[in-house]
Amino acid sequence: MQFTAKQISEFLDGTILGDETVEVGELSKIEDGVPGSLCFLSNPKYENYLYTTQASVVIVSNTFVPNQAIKCTLIKVKDPYSSFSVLLEKYNQALNQDSAKSGIDQPCFIHPTAKIGKNVFIGAFCNIEENVVIGDNCKIYTQIYIGRDSVIGSDCTINPGVKIYNRTHIGNRVTIHANTVIGSDGFGFAPQADGTYNKIAQIGNVVIEDDVEIGANTTIDRATMGSTFIRKGAKLDNLIQIAHNVDVGAHAVVAAQTGISGSTKLGERSVIGGQVGIAGHLVLGKGTQIGAQAGINFNTEENKQWHGSPAQPLKEWMRSTVIFKKLPEVDKRIRELEAKITELTAVIEQISTLQEKNER
Amino acid sequence: MQFTAKQISEFLDGTILGDETVEVGELSKIEDGVPGSLCFLSNPKYENYLYTTQASVVIVSNTFVPNQAIKCTLIKVKDPYSSFSVLLEKYNQALNQDSAKSGIDQPCFIHPTAKIGKNVFIGAFCNIEENVVIGDNCKIYTQIYIGRDSVIGSDCTINPGVKIYNRTHIGNRVTIHANTVIGSDGFGFAPQADGTYNKIAQIGNVVIEDDVEIGANTTIDRATMGSTFIRKGAKLDNLIQIAHNVDVGAHAVVAAQTGISGSTKLGERSVIGGQVGIAGHLVLGKGTQIGAQAGINFNTEENKQWHGSPAQPLKEWMRSTVIFKKLPEVDKRIRELEAKITELTAVIEQISTLQEKNER
Amino acid sequence: MQFTAKQISEFLDGTILGDETVEVGELSKIEDGVPGSLCFLSNPKYENYLYTTQASVVIVSNTFVPNQAIKCTLIKVKDPYSSFSVLLEKYNQALNQDSAKSGIDQPCFIHPTAKIGKNVFIGAFCNIEENVVIGDNCKIYTQIYIGRDSVIGSDCTINPGVKIYNRTHIGNRVTIHANTVIGSDGFGFAPQADGTYNKIAQIGNVVIEDDVEIGANTTIDRATMGSTFIRKGAKLDNLIQIAHNVDVGAHAVVAAQTGISGSTKLGERSVIGGQVGIAGHLVLGKGTQIGAQAGINFNTEENKQWHGSPAQPLKEWMRSTVIFKKLPEVDKRIRELEAKITELTAVIEQISTLQEKNER
Repeated sequence: MQFTAKQISEFLDGTILGDETVEVGELSKIEDGVPGSLCFLSNPKYENYLYTTQASVVIVSNTFVPNQAIKCTLIKVKDPYSSFSVLLEKYNQALNQDSAKSGIDQPCFIHPTAKIGKNVFIGAFCNIEENVVIGDNCKIYTQIYIGRDSVIGSDCTINPGVKIYNRTHIGNRVTIHANTVIGSDGFGFAPQADGTYNKIAQIGNVVIEDDVEIGANTTIDRATMGSTFIRKGAKLDNLIQIAHNVDVGAHAVVAAQTGISGSTKLGERSVIGGQVGIAGHLVLGKGTQIGAQAGINFNTEENKQWHGSPAQPLKEWMRSTVIFKKLPEVDKRIRELEAKITELTAVIEQISTLQEKNER
Repeated sequence: MQFTAKQISEFLDGTILGDETVEVGELSKIEDGVPGSLCFLSNPKYENYLYTTQASVVIVSNTFVPNQAIKCTLIKVKDPYSSFSVLLEKYNQALNQDSAKSGIDQPCFIHPTAKIGKNVFIGAFCNIEENVVIGDNCKIYTQIYIGRDSVIGSDCTINPGVKIYNRTHIGNRVTIHANTVIGSDGFGFAPQADGTYNKIAQIGNVVIEDDVEIGANTTIDRATMGSTFIRKGAKLDNLIQIAHNVDVGAHAVVAAQTGISGSTKLGERSVIGGQVGIAGHLVLGKGTQIGAQAGINFNTEENKQWHGSPAQPLKEWMRSTVIFKKLPEVDKRIRELEAKITELTAVIEQISTLQEKNER
Repeated sequence: MQFTAKQISEFLDGTILGDETVEVGELSKIEDGVPGSLCFLSNPKYENYLYTTQASVVIVSNTFVPNQAIKCTLIKVKDPYSSFSVLLEKYNQALNQDSAKSGIDQPCFIHPTAKIGKNVFIGAFCNIEENVVIGDNCKIYTQIYIGRDSVIGSDCTINPGVKIYNRTHIGNRVTIHANTVIGSDGFGFAPQADGTYNKIAQIGNVVIEDDVEIGANTTIDRATMGSTFIRKGAKLDNLIQIAHNVDVGAHAVVAAQTGISGSTKLGERSVIGGQVGIAGHLVLGKGTQIGAQAGINFNTEENKQWHGSPAQPLKEWMRSTVIFKKLPEVDKRIRELEAKITELTAVIEQISTLQEKNER
């Protein structure tokens, strides 16, 4: 795949500066540019790379004016990052001819009652149980399990090894990465008088709405009763734990290794960092932002930022951590104050004694 | 499935209050009750829902007396939560007719030396190696690996994608959720003089006793020598790391994403929150309780509660975190004290000078 | 398998003390020694066990001199731990006759264009895609997926359920444990004006160099562009998250449940504890050491030790945490100082008033 700067510029509806006949065949980051590669400059922090990059073509903003001589060809567009994303997507489609696959690889175990849509690919060693419904254009890669009565919409991509327990509902254009588990039992046990536990049967399910993406080795437990929800457009990273009856709001973004405990409702458009722990039975407002490794055990208002464990508002946490780091100094200052007070007390006593003597 | 309030009350050995002919066909939480659903009231915090719920039947305690008019039928029992659990379990059995499956789905790879008990179900694409023994009434769902010389007791449920390395011993009535790994190598490497590492062969195994439940995508490493133990009745959630030679005590409960390092012994009936980290070579006493995200690097006495990282006793940690949040104020107070001391020192000096002058 | 103390001593090039005809058939830890077992003593902390162990043979250092009577036979060697490791490895080979397997178990799905080396074992239900290359002497256990255009060197062990996305490059002598995912999409989404997110296609891959070992249920994301690198000799434990474009340095060791965010470069020979969180776009120097549960959001110099979240140098963190635990006391001391100051101020005012009066 080789394209000229001119072809790419026309495709992106851009304006060209420099040699429009130069050819590129790969995409790279500006700091890794090599001859024949195309990259983009969006963040001004990376501008210096523009003057040294070996890349043949760089996509920049319409408003960008170089302050030094450059060797590469520029393509000016409205939003360089978006334009580059479009090229990445095209390149990805070309790379992954898998995505053009359809049909069913053998051996597969597909129950005769399962309904498979048009133009679906199912890889070898999949196990599709009774009454499963799979919509059109889905890619169900290899070694996947889909339990009975589950429904998957159209245009979904389920990667190798994903296990979907029975009665799960998945919308359209959902992507799930390898070895993720959807619909395992919630962690519910009733303590008994003798110190043992009885299992609470988990009769609910998991509902995943349209346009959700879920990373690898993530676990989403079914509800005790009712449903665990992952709402429209939410994005979950790898190794995340979503407990029973959690409701992850629309377009929420959750980074890797975060855990959300049972029955908590995460507001839409929330942004949650990695390794965050969120306690159960909470309601976190829309647009809640939580920094990496924070621990939340209270409800939050809309659009607030939280850090630390236990969590505080961003600014307060920053101030507290700054002083935390100085605690040895704080301790020293207190000791000095104590010494000083002792000293002053002695001096004052002396003065006082003298004064009394003078009085007499 | 429709049952009258009367039928359910008789099944639970309860006392009925209200219309005993009303029919219910599903279970729900009291706050989600709809006509035709049955729910329970155990926690007094939820009592208000009783007066507004649309549920047809609510299970309550024998000692409960409503303080307002109610529309639904009440069934009074000794322990509403336990009674409801029994119904959940019945409902679950009806839902999961899978659990009535037996026989071996094809294709399967079962070594001719493997011994399979009576009334066992083995799903497609399982790989059961040499000398494996599987007890009666086990459900070995699909895409599971059981390594050579492993022994599984009776009435176990192994969910899709579980990988059990060789020589693992599993007791009776054990449930393991999807994609969990049992018996992977412990993380043992000997540092060499040149800064590289040599692998320490891990020749031990994993022993899981009766009535254990293990969540999804959890990892339990084999012992270097001897065994890693998960004792009778212990319950492990999802995404937990159990390192080599750990010994998880009987009826211990461990929440998601917690990690226990090598050779640590967790006392029986311990209750460990999510995302807790426990260092290696420790002995934690019976009934140890550890709050979410805590970090433990010392042995603990029986029945103590720990929070924070590094961990403290519950009360001390609460006091410390309260003041941590006020550290900016603490800093301000110290600065004020310092200013005050400087001021007082000046005043005292002045007084002293004057006094000396007066002396003369 | 039974060997005399003499046979083992000769094999290890050691010196024997005691009965050289005693036979051993298993390896154990010194604290678990039983008759017929062989163990080692390296750490002086365990010396007391030597005088009570039931083990038949104990490997000790050439320089070791017992200070009490002993019942077992000693074998003296230069480095007891290394010698014992050699025996563990031998024992392991004898136990795992699987490792002698070769050939392809059926059913398997192997694309006709895949190139499989000599003496390779491929277990049942594996899915090996177009153009995959697998080197000599590899063990590809069961239920594994290897995506198109991936290349695996020689002498690798890939355990059951591992999923390797397309275009991954793996070197020689690499071990990957069960259900680990290599090459899943990086977590890249471009926020849109309407609050939704557009997926950024991830066109890079993962490169794993020689002699790497990776634990179970770990996830390593492909690069957005270019490669995510796990360099020569690095050792990763279970349930670790390695994000897109991360570069894990040669011979780095990373404990379980740690997460490294996008584009961070971890220096060679780093040692990272469990549950550590490392932010994105950082450069951590060679030999960086990070304690369990720490959080790092800054670049680090070579060979420094970090603890806490946010992280501090080891000594400072220790001092800060000591005082953190005493914060209630710190608060009390400040209140006492404040009271004292109020009191002194009153006394001084009194003195001052008196002095003024005396002046007049």
